[in-house]
Amino acid sequence: MMNYDTGSEEWKNWIISERSFNKKYLGKCESIMVLGNGYMGVRSATEEAYIGEKRNTFVAGTFNRFDQNEVTELPNAADLIQLDIEVNGEVLDLTKGTIHNYNRQLNLRTGELCRSFTWVLTSGEEYDFRFKRFISLVDLHLIGQKIEIIPRNCNSSIKITSGINGQLTNSGVQHFSEGDQRLYENKYLQLVQTTTESKIDFLMNMVHNFKINEQIFTPESMIHMDRRKIYFHFDTSVNKGQTLMLEKISTIQTSRDRNLGNISLRELKNISYAHLKKQSSKGYETLFIESVKAWETRVWKQYGMEIESEHEFDQLAIRFAHYHLTIMTPAHDNRMNIGAKGLSGEGYKGHTFWDTEIFILPFWIYSAPKTARSLLEYRFFSLSGAHKKANENGYKGAMYPWESAWLDDGEVTPVWGAADIVTGEQTKIWSGFIEQHITADVAYAVRQYFQVTNDNEFMNEFGFELLFDTAKFWCSRLEWSIKDRQYHINDVVGPDEYKEHVNNNAFTNYMAYWTMKNALAYAHLLKKQKQSIFQKLNAKLNLTKEMLKWEERLELIYLPKPTANNLVIPQDDTYLQKKEIDLTKYKEQDEVGTIFNDYNLEQVNEIQVSKQADIMALFYLLEDYFSSEVKAANWNYYEPKTLHDSSLSLSIHSVLASDLGDSNLAYRLFKKASTIDLGSNMKSSDHGIHAASLGGIWQCVVNGFGGIRVLEGQLRIEPKLPENWSKLVFPIYWHGDRLKVVITKESVIIENITKENKRIEFLNHENLYILIDKITIQHNHSEK
Amino acid sequence: MMNYDTGSEEWKNWIISERSFNKKYLGKCESIMVLGNGYMGVRSATEEAYIGEKRNTFVAGTFNRFDQNEVTELPNAADLIQLDIEVNGEVLDLTKGTIHNYNRQLNLRTGELCRSFTWVLTSGEEYDFRFKRFISLVDLHLIGQKIEIIPRNCNSSIKITSGINGQLTNSGVQHFSEGDQRLYENKYLQLVQTTTESKIDFLMNMVHNFKINEQIFTPESMIHMDRRKIYFHFDTSVNKGQTLMLEKISTIQTSRDRNLGNISLRELKNISYAHLKKQSSKGYETLFIESVKAWETRVWKQYGMEIESEHEFDQLAIRFAHYHLTIMTPAHDNRMNIGAKGLSGEGYKGHTFWDTEIFILPFWIYSAPKTARSLLEYRFFSLSGAHKKANENGYKGAMYPWESAWLDDGEVTPVWGAADIVTGEQTKIWSGFIEQHITADVAYAVRQYFQVTNDNEFMNEFGFELLFDTAKFWCSRLEWSIKDRQYHINDVVGPDEYKEHVNNNAFTNYMAYWTMKNALAYAHLLKKQKQSIFQKLNAKLNLTKEMLKWEERLELIYLPKPTANNLVIPQDDTYLQKKEIDLTKYKEQDEVGTIFNDYNLEQVNEIQVSKQADIMALFYLLEDYFSSEVKAANWNYYEPKTLHDSSLSLSIHSVLASDLGDSNLAYRLFKKASTIDLGSNMKSSDHGIHAASLGGIWQCVVNGFGGIRVLEGQLRIEPKLPENWSKLVFPIYWHGDRLKVVITKESVIIENITKENKRIEFLNHENLYILIDKITIQHNHSEK
Repeated sequence: MMNYDTGSEEWKNWIISERSFNKKYLGKCESIMVLGNGYMGVRSATEEAYIGEKRNTFVAGTFNRFDQNEVTELPNAADLIQLDIEVNGEVLDLTKGTIHNYNRQLNLRTGELCRSFTWVLTSGEEYDFRFKRFISLVDLHLIGQKIEIIPRNCNSSIKITSGINGQLTNSGVQHFSEGDQRLYENKYLQLVQTTTESKIDFLMNMVHNFKINEQIFTPESMIHMDRRKIYFHFDTSVNKGQTLMLEKISTIQTSRDRNLGNISLRELKNISYAHLKKQSSKGYETLFIESVKAWETRVWKQYGMEIESEHEFDQLAIRFAHYHLTIMTPAHDNRMNIGAKGLSGEGYKGHTFWDTEIFILPFWIYSAPKTARSLLEYRFFSLSGAHKKANENGYKGAMYPWESAWLDDGEVTPVWGAADIVTGEQTKIWSGFIEQHITADVAYAVRQYFQVTNDNEFMNEFGFELLFDTAKFWCSRLEWSIKDRQYHINDVVGPDEYKEHVNNNAFTNYMAYWTMKNALAYAHLLKKQKQSIFQKLNAKLNLTKEMLKWEERLELIYLPKPTANNLVIPQDDTYLQKKEIDLTKYKEQDEVGTIFNDYNLEQVNEIQVSKQADIMALFYLLEDYFSSEVKAANWNYYEPKTLHDSSLSLSIHSVLASDLGDSNLAYRLFKKASTIDLGSNMKSSDHGIHAASLGGIWQCVVNGFGGIRVLEGQLRIEPKLPENWSKLVFPIYWHGDRLKVVITKESVIIENITKENKRIEFLNHENLYILIDKITIQHNHSEK
Repeated sequence: MMNYDTGSEEWKNWIISERSFNKKYLGKCESIMVLGNGYMGVRSATEEAYIGEKRNTFVAGTFNRFDQNEVTELPNAADLIQLDIEVNGEVLDLTKGTIHNYNRQLNLRTGELCRSFTWVLTSGEEYDFRFKRFISLVDLHLIGQKIEIIPRNCNSSIKITSGINGQLTNSGVQHFSEGDQRLYENKYLQLVQTTTESKIDFLMNMVHNFKINEQIFTPESMIHMDRRKIYFHFDTSVNKGQTLMLEKISTIQTSRDRNLGNISLRELKNISYAHLKKQSSKGYETLFIESVKAWETRVWKQYGMEIESEHEFDQLAIRFAHYHLTIMTPAHDNRMNIGAKGLSGEGYKGHTFWDTEIFILPFWIYSAPKTARSLLEYRFFSLSGAHKKANENGYKGAMYPWESAWLDDGEVTPVWGAADIVTGEQTKIWSGFIEQHITADVAYAVRQYFQVTNDNEFMNEFGFELLFDTAKFWCSRLEWSIKDRQYHINDVVGPDEYKEHVNNNAFTNYMAYWTMKNALAYAHLLKKQKQSIFQKLNAKLNLTKEMLKWEERLELIYLPKPTANNLVIPQDDTYLQKKEIDLTKYKEQDEVGTIFNDYNLEQVNEIQVSKQADIMALFYLLEDYFSSEVKAANWNYYEPKTLHDSSLSLSIHSVLASDLGDSNLAYRLFKKASTIDLGSNMKSSDHGIHAASLGGIWQCVVNGFGGIRVLEGQLRIEPKLPENWSKLVFPIYWHGDRLKVVITKESVIIENITKENKRIEFLNHENLYILIDKITIQHNHSEK
């Protein structure tokens, strides 16, 4: 059904396509072909409606809470895409009649979604349909659609119903007020709605322009208003062979837009209407070309990679990741962050997790540091929410919410989840209460950003405070154990969410330790080198006193060590004592979470089974804390017990496999990670694409196969190309310079594009270990 | 598509059926085949879902308001009906494959909805499907479903998804909290949700029981919980020729139920679960037979009519009316009333209009006085809302809301309606502000109820107060005109809603006059005959002072008189001066409201065009105020200007045509009224059946053709059978006695069923005028 080698020549490995229509693939195509630009995301539901479709329109950062029983979420805004088409009395419906030459495709390079087919009715009438659609990367508010209908062997009375439909919900949850409907100049439609709790105004505008055989014409039309809905019925006659063409241009603006926050609603209405009027006058093609150019210059020339592989799919997979990483990220506004499903579905309610810092941010740090900075600034601006959470839990400092939405929301993880097959009730989700490692993950990302960018300005303004405030939390979080006279961290969930209420999760303890240790080092440095900043932060955070505490407690934190007999690090205090069962059945499943068909979470908690990388994630983040021997021993122990039931698991395992020198395994895991969204599982992407996994794919390539890592403040390149790859080319930023890294089996070439003639070549890179800082750009410590 | 003569023998004229599947008829069948029992109404959406369906479940009286921008409405509760069925991987969808022997039918007599067909897939596989469904008339909370699937020529893996789905909305408006999901005994599903503002708890329970070839069996099943949703996936193998049978029993209870109002939610959950468990153990057939018996004894033996007509359809049409009048009326609870669409659709939001008092109540008054009383008690209990409205508008007494919902809500008419084609904005709805005749209509209904039932107990407790309090309003509403030294009623909307902001609408002025005059007469009577009641009401309403005012003002109220030249009564002060246009185009349309395709309401306001009966309604209600000559003259003037764009128009015109002696015209109008829901217009019933029109159909027959009317406190029978009717038999209550009226061309027989041997016969009833009180039951003034 899905096809990844449709493109040829200039479009080779750029096209994701669906070659026949099947309602079972509705969700998958809606998600993986989603359009967007970081400001908004619109699932690629077909123009005509089908049972089972999920028609979503999200605008980043516009969170709303339905009531006190639910958590805040990204609301599903009014639909602008749907079109009901009737030809000679038959409603377009691909489950009826016969379809020829069906093709639906997303062009990753241009961001255009196209669909074309010939529909043959039982009456014998034949129609060609062509649909095109894009969301502009230049005008963040604009959606273009183009529809062509050609009756091939008959004259046809064609009726089209199209407009703005605010009757949609988030799976039943309505986040908007009724709103105002308005028709301007008998042509421009407008629906203005406000979110019920956060009071964000949404302004949706739309215009329709028709042509027959390239000649502008005006069909008969009738305007309709209904609850939360304004739309036209168009009615026209098209002769055999003629082309009826409809251009539909729509815009979305909201009062959350940076530039529109303080304008009256009346004014907003006029602005948005005027904006649509002006933009739509350019027409679909012009608007589209503008957007294509932006894709070329801002995305592909910036982040583009070249992979020469025996499997063409690898090149497409990384482009697919780049495409989605681009459209999921609200780079335009540092009050916003990335949702776990990007803007591609209702899954995880648009909330931000550690997925950003650990899985996605490395891509931005190395590829577009400005965007990475914006995402970290979001964490700074949401310190109020983190303080609120610390306060509520009796801790100090910044305790980041496991799930994060608007800046001051604090913790927004829902409390109830899937069915518990034993009790018959919903399973309680504990992550929002006790999955606390996120606060270390944020600190880790700040340090990583600083190391790669050397952005002192960011650190002075935001970064140091984040590092200290998170350390402050961890220091307050430690629990003194009288028994072993060490600090413990009890009752947590680690990255492996199949183990709840554990004590001393290795990942959590080590990362807490690291956070405090790193903060302490920077605090000493500031005190010495940047007195004024130190004073400011000292006043705010009581640093001097904190530093004493950190110093005192750091070495007393219990850090689980490899056991003597087999070098296995206990994932937590009890994991190794739990019972082992045969997991083959669950490991072989294409579906995730199948273990819950047999056990409830309480029971799973008592088995040596893991959802995802836990100790492995620790090895990846703090790679120099552990020896290769320990890493290998733990891989061998834990991987067989890991179901990879989280999309965050495979990519980390792949990078680690590269580190451990098993490129073939690393490649297999990379492939598996790539098929989380692009694979044959019809349902896995229904709720949206897997944002972290897409970031993870990039890491498999750059951090894994490319061997890029920061070690002791220096950039390391230690490439480990998979067997069937002959070449890998990718760009990275290092301390403000843009480097082009070209890796082949025989050589590594590093070119400093920012500074001319800085080209360094290494032959035969087997076991190559290059510390870039020392070699190519040792004098370059300037700001970006 | 629709077929009304499917039934034969004992089912003759009892069956409404659809003989082939067409998605365009989804809405019509959902509405006209709706199931219910006055407690709840469930639209008859098919088990499998289709685009364009409207899946509604309403429980009477459970109003909720989404927010301050919208008015309260009957919320669309969780769906219990839908079933997704997959046979050998193909999802049941009647737009695919071939369908043989399709039949969907509502049996009006038993209240059972059945659907059966053979589905032939393109693979050649053939399946028989049979669906049955009913809502119990005995256990008001119970819904039964039965599904049979037979693979005719193959073995089949059959998958069924079924459960409780609370993701539905009222066209996008969500009225419920997320709620609690629970599975009991791995078998019984429960979803408990609470309305967001009115805080009414809804408890939905469901159980599934399977058989193969009559043998109980348990399929593989998997429980799922999702947002507002709990459901099972069932998975089973059925051999060729075997019958897979599923019985699905569901219940709904709410904390608004009279007996459940003060019970804790925890207790409610247990009660509702225990109730389902007990009831479902009886099985579909037993539960269904219980309900059928209730239909027989409580409905058909009570209200059943016999019509011998050349057109069989007439008998079916009146049964259709009886069926719907039964299931739309919340006879179980006097805090509730009838919605303008019954419980059959979202149209008019479940609100009560004058439709109840003027169009529907006569049926109940004559057929089941207890139910009529309950509906009038609703108006008594909503006096608080009426006082609130009077207060807000600066008047005294009881000013009834144009649209009424829960008792103390007051006015709930929405303010904004359809598109104004001139301004591009929504049209403002003025009815809630100035359509005031409702307050006279309620008083009129009280008097009618009293006259027919002689229910003094009701009058003493509720009725007199209603009569006086409404008169008090009208007295305060009168505006003194210095110019003509009379009382005017300015700036109103009369029954003809195409004329807004008119002065002295004849209907309104006369009915206000009547209300005050009638109240005054009863007040004098009470003062004389029921001192204690008079004293009580005097204390409450300041009657003595009011009576003086009424006396003084009554004869000064301006009542538009027939003009000298043509006997036409001006509908209001300006109607007759407005311009006349050719209305042929709009009168000939099958659709209503087509004039708004060319004019906006402001423009329509300036044309001599009427939406519906206005003066004609006045003639009907106060028939002894006007001569036949005047009635005929006004008919000839106004009817040609009336578009009958309201379903309330035709039946009144039909009764009036009977009164004017034109039985053929009366019959044609009756037919037309009968086809408002049963006709060929595919879309007219989409938002629900036309409750008032169904009451109107009953009036066409009993008040029109049967010539039943109360005149001067006496029952008049003046039959005028249509030409092609040979016999009409109907029951009515008069002063507590049950009369059977048998009308033929040659004779009228009136049988008092309550008192034996009271049978009176009249031959040759041409121009017969019988005042029943004097002849058959002149001594019978006892209480019911």
